[in-house]
Amino acid sequence: MTEILDHRLRGAWTPEGAAAAHLPDKAVRWLTQRIGPLGADAPVAPDSALAVPDSRLPSGARAALAGVVGAEQVTTDRAERLDRAGGLSYLDLLRRRHPASGLSVPDAVVLPADPAEVQRVLEVCAAHDVGVVPFGGGTSVVGGVAALRGDKAAVVALDLERLDRLVSVDPESRIAVLQAGVRGPEAERLLAPHGFTLGHVPQSFERATIGGLAATRSAGQASAGYGRFEDMVTGVRLATPSGEWRLGVAPASAAGPDLRHLAVGSEGALGVITEVAVRVRPVPGVRRFEGFVVDGWERAVGVVRALAQDGLLADVTRLSDVDETGVSLALNAGWKAAALRAYLAARRVAEPCLLVLGWDGPSARAVAARRRETVRRLRAAGAVALGAGPGEAWRRGRFSGPRQRDALLDLGVCVETLETAAYWSRLPELYARVRAALRGALARPVVMCHLSHAYETGASLYFTVLAARDGAGPIGQWERAKAAACATIADGPLGTVSHHHGVGVDHAPYLGAEVGEVGLSVLAAAKRAVDPTGILNPGKLLR
Amino acid sequence: MTEILDHRLRGAWTPEGAAAAHLPDKAVRWLTQRIGPLGADAPVAPDSALAVPDSRLPSGARAALAGVVGAEQVTTDRAERLDRAGGLSYLDLLRRRHPASGLSVPDAVVLPADPAEVQRVLEVCAAHDVGVVPFGGGTSVVGGVAALRGDKAAVVALDLERLDRLVSVDPESRIAVLQAGVRGPEAERLLAPHGFTLGHVPQSFERATIGGLAATRSAGQASAGYGRFEDMVTGVRLATPSGEWRLGVAPASAAGPDLRHLAVGSEGALGVITEVAVRVRPVPGVRRFEGFVVDGWERAVGVVRALAQDGLLADVTRLSDVDETGVSLALNAGWKAAALRAYLAARRVAEPCLLVLGWDGPSARAVAARRRETVRRLRAAGAVALGAGPGEAWRRGRFSGPRQRDALLDLGVCVETLETAAYWSRLPELYARVRAALRGALARPVVMCHLSHAYETGASLYFTVLAARDGAGPIGQWERAKAAACATIADGPLGTVSHHHGVGVDHAPYLGAEVGEVGLSVLAAAKRAVDPTGILNPGKLLR
Repeated sequence: MTEILDHRLRGAWTPEGAAAAHLPDKAVRWLTQRIGPLGADAPVAPDSALAVPDSRLPSGARAALAGVVGAEQVTTDRAERLDRAGGLSYLDLLRRRHPASGLSVPDAVVLPADPAEVQRVLEVCAAHDVGVVPFGGGTSVVGGVAALRGDKAAVVALDLERLDRLVSVDPESRIAVLQAGVRGPEAERLLAPHGFTLGHVPQSFERATIGGLAATRSAGQASAGYGRFEDMVTGVRLATPSGEWRLGVAPASAAGPDLRHLAVGSEGALGVITEVAVRVRPVPGVRRFEGFVVDGWERAVGVVRALAQDGLLADVTRLSDVDETGVSLALNAGWKAAALRAYLAARRVAEPCLLVLGWDGPSARAVAARRRETVRRLRAAGAVALGAGPGEAWRRGRFSGPRQRDALLDLGVCVETLETAAYWSRLPELYARVRAALRGALARPVVMCHLSHAYETGASLYFTVLAARDGAGPIGQWERAKAAACATIADGPLGTVSHHHGVGVDHAPYLGAEVGEVGLSVLAAAKRAVDPTGILNPGKLLR
Repeated sequence: MTEILDHRLRGAWTPEGAAAAHLPDKAVRWLTQRIGPLGADAPVAPDSALAVPDSRLPSGARAALAGVVGAEQVTTDRAERLDRAGGLSYLDLLRRRHPASGLSVPDAVVLPADPAEVQRVLEVCAAHDVGVVPFGGGTSVVGGVAALRGDKAAVVALDLERLDRLVSVDPESRIAVLQAGVRGPEAERLLAPHGFTLGHVPQSFERATIGGLAATRSAGQASAGYGRFEDMVTGVRLATPSGEWRLGVAPASAAGPDLRHLAVGSEGALGVITEVAVRVRPVPGVRRFEGFVVDGWERAVGVVRALAQDGLLADVTRLSDVDETGVSLALNAGWKAAALRAYLAARRVAEPCLLVLGWDGPSARAVAARRRETVRRLRAAGAVALGAGPGEAWRRGRFSGPRQRDALLDLGVCVETLETAAYWSRLPELYARVRAALRGALARPVVMCHLSHAYETGASLYFTVLAARDGAGPIGQWERAKAAACATIADGPLGTVSHHHGVGVDHAPYLGAEVGEVGLSVLAAAKRAVDPTGILNPGKLLR
């Protein structure tokens, strides 16, 4: 079972004291060839080197908070505050290496024990004009947990780690109620004795919390089989300055707009999610991973589209473009890459695109039955089966991306990801234009892409960018590239500015292009209703 | 292909001039035995007998509306106004037979030609303080199209029948954009040349419009296969007094709350839906219907639950309880009911529950493959296969319920339906308590129920009630029974007050139990944002 990572964030995904991911020499050589000479970034600064302003939490507010949660659960300790000073985006990590760029540090950390305490904490904060940043796994890559004070007197990080219980399991309805602070691996550990799994495995799985998954509309790697997190949420309990809010009384309803979809994706700006009722499924008896190669991105996308539209997707369906496949082939020793390249050459695969499939099922027989027609379609499209190797390799490394990023930062590489989604007919243009935008904004970048979530009407695209640093400074360099990509996506809009990372601070400028001025005014009105003085996650979601 | 019914509503579902549904003598005898002597209701009153107040539409508003849509598309004609005076609930029908009970008649009917005209009509109505009731098929059974004036100077019915176009088809993304006024059969006719179907077939199919299906979160009879209408909506275009609003740029998104779910289900109170982008599917090559009998309601519900949770539901999955099955066996000559009863007796089926399954697929082979495991499960549960007969009988009669209701009203029968949904673990209690509430509120009623929409976490229940009239007067009698049922559902809440009929006027008192006071305040705030002066469908959704 996967380990839960210590949630203390010290400017790196890799936990303090743990060995950093090792980049093999050949990877460094390959990178140097592709993007130019590597350097060395400043190391992650020790706490002592970081500027932490004195806490502005008024003493009256502190006393009132202590009255709710106990004095020991309100802290202005420097290290505790630094632990909740932002999330884990590339920019967040850079800020820990370049302290002059400035961290947003909360004035205090508050650790309530249960939903009732969360509710009372909000009432105290509203009374004392203190902003509240709900803090779960801290894995936001869009600035969602930045401790912005806005126009408030102070801002506290409301850490939900003590809300760590499995509240109830309804095996007949296949619904489990989990408190918001339960992390991915712990959720699985709590559900396993009941025979259930969430089946929700985003790359942030080791750290992310149930509340955070709901608040940001997470999509797990097995979304084709288990659905997006929003599809799994049957009920939500939120604390708001206007009172507690519970939603979800039936599997489906026509009792007006589905307000669950307003709570899900609300990113702490419309309430603090304290409990989530989620649909669970039996732990699968069998998990099978495998790889295929399809010749040509357009053809490969067409194959995945047909599988999605005909109900034949594997639970995990992940298609890499030629560039990403090339990197995998170049760097992944586990696959015997040279032999594989020869094999593909013999089969005249000119532009290999790696397709990883993962199947969950009660038995090998059930998986085989589901898999049969999918594989038949793949073969008909000329796909070359690579067997279990590449699938298992992907599975083993499914959470390693963020650790590799730490190692790449050490080498002074500009490394970040961004993701979007669009309808199938717009996907080729979106793919081409985002790549062009990133290439236009960066010198000699490596731009890789994969399609990891497919639907009947469209799919997501996930880009990974590697580039040598340039004269703009590391933060300015990425801000420029990111702005170019987002402007391209929001032009039309061609797609959504985020398929599963959320809005936070970074995407807020682009939300209007997607939901319109009327949509922004509706969100603002909803926020005023639940949070009249605007204490909830200032500066996030809505600017 | 199904005929589109004239949408003019004359106190009956059965179109004027068409033959009323025939109730066979044996049905009348059976009813008399069960509920007591039948009488005869007053016939549907002719227009001349109905009190229609003079139009209060101010002349300035009328002139401004004529300036937008043309003088001939704004009418205060008595007959035209009566055509949009309410929907098709039992109470609506009674009001046409008992004119003294009072109809809500709009002050005028406005017929815009396109979304731009709808937008300008709203601006004119906002400027002149005129309420607007969006009017599609007029099939609301919860008062959703009652022409309530609220605190406005006047109220107009905004009939969307001229918004009857297929705007575009994106075959690659399988998305069609339809204008709001397109009715079910016409949508299918427009899509068929492109090889697509909506697959959305509610009982109101012959009259209901695309805009209405979205505004009320409709669920079609094949919801297990095609999803609820909300699942099919990828985009919405609305006119609001605060400006046009377009939503839907990607198949899935994490760009904040999914506001599509606020537009869908908004019942004309948050905007007038003018266009809907819907996911379409290829027209199936094969449709197969069949019937089974399972012995005992609880066992049968358990079987359907297992099918839903294991992904084995047929596209149409409809399970009748013992009472509803008994009525079908007693009245449906097409099944050779006596022989069937003998057959079931020989197989010792003590409490037969009829299960109708409907399968769509590209080929008979594909349907057979899908069907295999489902049938194996049914046989393992002791289900008796009845073959195609009962399935085809249900299919032929799938839209006939409302016509039979007209015939029953002629006989002075109290006849209405109500529906709810709950999680599986609460379903037995919900079933028992709603039946008890209806039986407590009515003397000697027939209360029948079916489960017609099953999900992993729960299912819907649809009750049909037949009773002799009592001393309370027909309207007071049903209001009493309906209130008893709704109070039971909302207690806890045990389930949702509506699975697919919507809120309208009738369910508005129970919405707070479901979404909480915070939820009501959020909806009210959203309404103020899009409709600052409250002209949109006054008195609906929110009281």
